[in-house]
Amino acid sequence: MTADSASLSVTTSDHTDTIYLDNAATTPVLEEVFLEMMPYLRVHYGNPSSLHSKGYVAKRAISIARNKVASIIGASDKEIIFTSGGTESNNLAIRGAALECRAKNPGKSHLITSKIEHESVLEPFRNLEKNGFEVTYLPVSNQGIVNIDTLKESISSSRTALVSVMLVNNEVGTIQPVKEISSIIRLTNKEILFHCDATQGVGKIPINVQDLGTDLVTISSHKINGPKGTGALYVRHGVRIDPLLLGGGQETLFRSGTENVYGIVGFGKACEIALLKLTENKHNVSKMRDYLVNKIIKIIPGTRYNGSKIHRISNNAHFTFSGVNGEALVMKLDEYGIATSTGSACSSRKQRSSHVLKAMGFSYDEITGSLRISISARNTIHEMDRFVMILSKVIYELRKFSPINSQL
Amino acid sequence: MTADSASLSVTTSDHTDTIYLDNAATTPVLEEVFLEMMPYLRVHYGNPSSLHSKGYVAKRAISIARNKVASIIGASDKEIIFTSGGTESNNLAIRGAALECRAKNPGKSHLITSKIEHESVLEPFRNLEKNGFEVTYLPVSNQGIVNIDTLKESISSSRTALVSVMLVNNEVGTIQPVKEISSIIRLTNKEILFHCDATQGVGKIPINVQDLGTDLVTISSHKINGPKGTGALYVRHGVRIDPLLLGGGQETLFRSGTENVYGIVGFGKACEIALLKLTENKHNVSKMRDYLVNKIIKIIPGTRYNGSKIHRISNNAHFTFSGVNGEALVMKLDEYGIATSTGSACSSRKQRSSHVLKAMGFSYDEITGSLRISISARNTIHEMDRFVMILSKVIYELRKFSPINSQL
Repeated sequence: MTADSASLSVTTSDHTDTIYLDNAATTPVLEEVFLEMMPYLRVHYGNPSSLHSKGYVAKRAISIARNKVASIIGASDKEIIFTSGGTESNNLAIRGAALECRAKNPGKSHLITSKIEHESVLEPFRNLEKNGFEVTYLPVSNQGIVNIDTLKESISSSRTALVSVMLVNNEVGTIQPVKEISSIIRLTNKEILFHCDATQGVGKIPINVQDLGTDLVTISSHKINGPKGTGALYVRHGVRIDPLLLGGGQETLFRSGTENVYGIVGFGKACEIALLKLTENKHNVSKMRDYLVNKIIKIIPGTRYNGSKIHRISNNAHFTFSGVNGEALVMKLDEYGIATSTGSACSSRKQRSSHVLKAMGFSYDEITGSLRISISARNTIHEMDRFVMILSKVIYELRKFSPINSQL
Repeated sequence: MTADSASLSVTTSDHTDTIYLDNAATTPVLEEVFLEMMPYLRVHYGNPSSLHSKGYVAKRAISIARNKVASIIGASDKEIIFTSGGTESNNLAIRGAALECRAKNPGKSHLITSKIEHESVLEPFRNLEKNGFEVTYLPVSNQGIVNIDTLKESISSSRTALVSVMLVNNEVGTIQPVKEISSIIRLTNKEILFHCDATQGVGKIPINVQDLGTDLVTISSHKINGPKGTGALYVRHGVRIDPLLLGGGQETLFRSGTENVYGIVGFGKACEIALLKLTENKHNVSKMRDYLVNKIIKIIPGTRYNGSKIHRISNNAHFTFSGVNGEALVMKLDEYGIATSTGSACSSRKQRSSHVLKAMGFSYDEITGSLRISISARNTIHEMDRFVMILSKVIYELRKFSPINSQL
């Protein structure tokens, strides 16, 4: 099929529902998760700190959820701290570890992270730089994989307090060598803490914190069909970090504030389902993704598929379409009922060019022309077909107005 | 009716549902609030930062909710920052204001709060003390009202950066002289910021931030029949504070993190309803409360009604029953299906004696024997009658085992 023939059969008015391909930004709450949450909104509404039955019911629900969240990363329930989401978990881990380490040992003022972390990791590091810490930002290959050699060179047993590298990049879906990084850290010094933002990896690849060798791990609920407004931080048994929210002393003093009971209950259920269906979903999603990628590359000229093909999460497809403006593309696709992204949702509205693609060596034009597709097990092959048809039509149209693409 | 006759007609097994008298700890989500939230869990699940329609729908919902939250305190929507709840709002306000002020003017290292604040206010202040700030903790009268004279004496135009005094105390329900405090601050120096934790006042007494003269105001959702896991901080136009959660730059850079869309939508609806019904609820609740208080004082000997009778919120009744252990009382009442509290829910499980009652000059025994009853418009006069009957029976029984109360 050519772009021309596609344009004959598709109009902006004939779609009945959204083809949702922005699952890295957020996901709908599953029916089973919703049903699990419901009673805690209207019936079991007690404050978990209360001494009466309504309080105990809420407290018990949190305890059950804590076990389910722990299971998805092979942790113990006592190592799970509930937070308001991935951003809070990242802030708590990074600021908390850095301040705690420096308080114990003032010489520990060096921190390491990568250039392709999420803003909720990078911003706390930038803030710590203002507060006297020195930060090394690890470069990445053009495939979007963190450079291990720079880590080896920059790490210092006496000065480095914390290393933070993500498990899966949120834009290009590359899986980082977390296990290798933890081995390097452990060889250097046992007192360097290792934080891993696993937001995009949880529920998609098997995770075991013992195996990964991490001290702190960020998990988000709304990326795995749980509710927004809740997340967790894994804090390995024995690790101390400075708390961020102070008050009533909930979450064993790590995170004060009345617990978001229904959020936590939903998050637990979402983890339970994600773990149960991990292998099946991974298989189906990667099959769909590969089908989609092959079709796009075959049909749409001037296409570049970005990021490592080997070390990559199953649900991510990331492209650069030459001569196309990514934002215009996302908005045009939206008119056809297709939800996609130019990159991280968090920076979508800020119109800032992607720091991830920049770190991968992309030119300004290449960054501008990028599209992130993040699929889920709820998508279908039929949707992939329909999407490619519309995509090729939209790109064809957008390129008509782009002077540099007459040759495509 | 005497305690003896009550014991004949009530058993622990005959209650059908909970008489919920712990509304200062948390409240159920109203049906209307729940219905408003529902679509945003399953259908309009987009990330507000996304550029497609699902994102826009979520973004618009937040904008509508922001207006509703602003209305309940007479603020502009641009002055409302959504957070994960009251604890985060208090932490953000206090830490954020103190650090921002000191960064601009290193001499500004003095802070003022009161001895009866919530832990989520006191703990951030204690933490700031560890970081070089000097904190004055204002004493209170035996009626639970903050001492204005000490404020006047301790405030310094050159050194004081922030004053934080709550609107309504969460244990004894006393309304603090916030307007008077803001007048004193404004007379001293225009550059001293004034934060007010209005968690227990919002939706119960009319609040207008212009009238109160506050710069920062904390609001919680789950205390006014909205969902847990969301709250807000009012930041007066032009006031700068250091953000607590860094990342994607949501909430005009004040609070990063994917927005808890359904939580925020529910919070907005809860504010709308609370404002609409404020006068009616206040009238009904205070009538029920007065009926209850009079009956308890009349029927149960050895009873002391605590806190100011004049400057008091309509839904709070706080008692000391001599020779009774408050915790035993709460748990015994729970067996009859009645939910009450010894004090703040946040410290209930920690078995710490109340810092509020201590500041009011209560002895250890008086603190131990205290009970907080916090009613709502959903309670009924029939429930009050039933509660008093059971309370008198339970107190009678508990006192039988207390050696000092044979005379009562």
